[in-house]
Amino acid sequence: MKQARSSDFKPKKSVALSGVPAGNTSLCTVGTNGNELHYRGYDILDLAENATFHEVAYLLIHGSLPDSITLKNYQELLVKKRFLSEPHRAMLKLIPKTAHPMDVLRTSVSFLGSLEPEKMPHTESQSQAIIDRLMASMGSALLFWYHWSHFGKEINTESPEESISGHFLHLLHETSPSASWVRALESSLNLYAEHEFNASTFSARVIAGTGSDVYSAVSGAIGALRGPKHGGANEVAFEILQRYRDPDHAEQDIKQRLAAKEVVIGFGHPVYTVSDPRNQVIKRIALQLSREAGDIKLYNIAERIETVMWAEKKMFPNLDWFSAVAYHLMGIPTDMFTPLFVMSRIAGWGAHVMEQREDGKIIRPSAQYTGPENREFIPLNKR
Amino acid sequence: MKQARSSDFKPKKSVALSGVPAGNTSLCTVGTNGNELHYRGYDILDLAENATFHEVAYLLIHGSLPDSITLKNYQELLVKKRFLSEPHRAMLKLIPKTAHPMDVLRTSVSFLGSLEPEKMPHTESQSQAIIDRLMASMGSALLFWYHWSHFGKEINTESPEESISGHFLHLLHETSPSASWVRALESSLNLYAEHEFNASTFSARVIAGTGSDVYSAVSGAIGALRGPKHGGANEVAFEILQRYRDPDHAEQDIKQRLAAKEVVIGFGHPVYTVSDPRNQVIKRIALQLSREAGDIKLYNIAERIETVMWAEKKMFPNLDWFSAVAYHLMGIPTDMFTPLFVMSRIAGWGAHVMEQREDGKIIRPSAQYTGPENREFIPLNKR
Repeated sequence: MKQARSSDFKPKKSVALSGVPAGNTSLCTVGTNGNELHYRGYDILDLAENATFHEVAYLLIHGSLPDSITLKNYQELLVKKRFLSEPHRAMLKLIPKTAHPMDVLRTSVSFLGSLEPEKMPHTESQSQAIIDRLMASMGSALLFWYHWSHFGKEINTESPEESISGHFLHLLHETSPSASWVRALESSLNLYAEHEFNASTFSARVIAGTGSDVYSAVSGAIGALRGPKHGGANEVAFEILQRYRDPDHAEQDIKQRLAAKEVVIGFGHPVYTVSDPRNQVIKRIALQLSREAGDIKLYNIAERIETVMWAEKKMFPNLDWFSAVAYHLMGIPTDMFTPLFVMSRIAGWGAHVMEQREDGKIIRPSAQYTGPENREFIPLNKR
Repeated sequence: MKQARSSDFKPKKSVALSGVPAGNTSLCTVGTNGNELHYRGYDILDLAENATFHEVAYLLIHGSLPDSITLKNYQELLVKKRFLSEPHRAMLKLIPKTAHPMDVLRTSVSFLGSLEPEKMPHTESQSQAIIDRLMASMGSALLFWYHWSHFGKEINTESPEESISGHFLHLLHETSPSASWVRALESSLNLYAEHEFNASTFSARVIAGTGSDVYSAVSGAIGALRGPKHGGANEVAFEILQRYRDPDHAEQDIKQRLAAKEVVIGFGHPVYTVSDPRNQVIKRIALQLSREAGDIKLYNIAERIETVMWAEKKMFPNLDWFSAVAYHLMGIPTDMFTPLFVMSRIAGWGAHVMEQREDGKIIRPSAQYTGPENREFIPLNKR
């Protein structure tokens, strides 16, 4: 994650094409007042805790908030799309325990594209059906692989849970999750669902711009999200948090690291300048889960570092910071933090792929050449 | 493919970020005089027929043209890297015959990333080793899948061939290819190896910019190349050529299509304005292979359409046009044309991934918002 733009300090890492429009979108605005986020015109603060993830996904992929009947039908459809075919399960069994779950998801999406390919010509309804299928089955695929590779257990990937969060937590823990956990994860997925032309979404649009298929765009986006400067940051945020015994220890160490010019992952953002609007929501969720668990230590450490980072650097936490606390409290393994980001952002990626296709443009920038000019070719036998 | 920029006509499709520099490169210049292509300062016309593909790949990935001993060692290394592990073969057997070979390659690369992951921190030597491994084994993976899925045959993926072209043709036809075919394919791969910030390379750079791994960048790039506006064009070019009985038939039909404003794939280019410098090389190769085969029909049709497109639209053929003729003459199935492009362009993609890492930038453009503003959220039970 990048440091925020502020007069107090310079970003340590530069952002290429920063501020350069690469296309049109009707899906999202970010940072227009320094700290806002809207999905299709709706404020994220209205959506986050008042809608289910399926409502938000429907809004992004299908264009409007569903009414009760539409939502019920949509949920039933998604529940039916959770299954894994036999070759898909056989493929997942071949991926070793040592693989990163992001590699599992990237491969799973790509493989599904060879089993259930998108037909030409592309249509909106076919694209939506594929995005829904990916969204519904990703959790099944990841957790099927997880239980097989780690415990040699072939799990049933069906669950009675209505929500995508419930399904994920059910398959992970092999029991029905509490309503509180489900609601917390739903809100978190809502926060992660869409974020304009971030690097993974932009990858999906560059890929879709050539006329390629949804699976190619999504597997490329997963690859981009995997990077520690992008989605991978939420895993790193947890690694930072778990270093500390208590808030005082955290404060002392973080101050030393700042003095040594170390970048603290989980703070600042290339688009927001004032604050990340999602932080207040995920922070509240992290606090609630901490209280319910009777374990407030990690939250307190996170909050202390938030205070220190603001006092020392005028930097604010981004969504990844308290997400790490919340996910940990729900017993989610650290290397599944970024895969959960995928399971949510697939809604935004899918909507952007459809938008790029309507746009009809191939994305092809230029480069500044910095290499040697007009070198003479010397044949092999004279080199 | 886009039409060339010329005063005579307007491009039918627009290119987003056209002419906007998205970063630096020392790998390649394209179109600076309307029709030039240099790899690391060497003219493509010097490299194409005077170097093996391994020399060109070494130039791109490792930075300089190898001397005889370096090249010999490099070839021996690449021959050793052609193997497929047992899980890799098992995975390929699960991909159905109906899959597009590009989906096979994308999945194969992604899967290999879970078997032989890139370790953090990334180093140049590790990146080079992975790119070399992918380059060496892609042909093995594609043809193992092809023979298994189409004929139920489990082929040996070893061959005595030194060159990547020889290895590919040997596994495809299960016999040693002629020296003429090997040289023709080598030259073609040289022409396809690198092309600055085209859409697939740019995808690879956007993915690498987040700090992600080589496999993610390459599988994303394969997904982008798959599109019919990019690499997929060489398959479409063949579909056009094989429609015609003879050159007169082709001329008559193409003129009718032009009158109906149809875009003819294989002509024009978003970067070159005068001609595609690669055309003269691949055209010569296509003619030679046609003469050797005693079958000049397809070449004559291609050449006639070239004449018509120039006379009617001032449009020139790009590399894909006569590649389609050459590949067909070597008995290469049409849906392997774009995979051959992958097996070559992997050299350029890999070099760009390393360059993007040195650069250290995340690529994150902006978007122009065209959607609704500030919509009021209505709870589900009131919709």
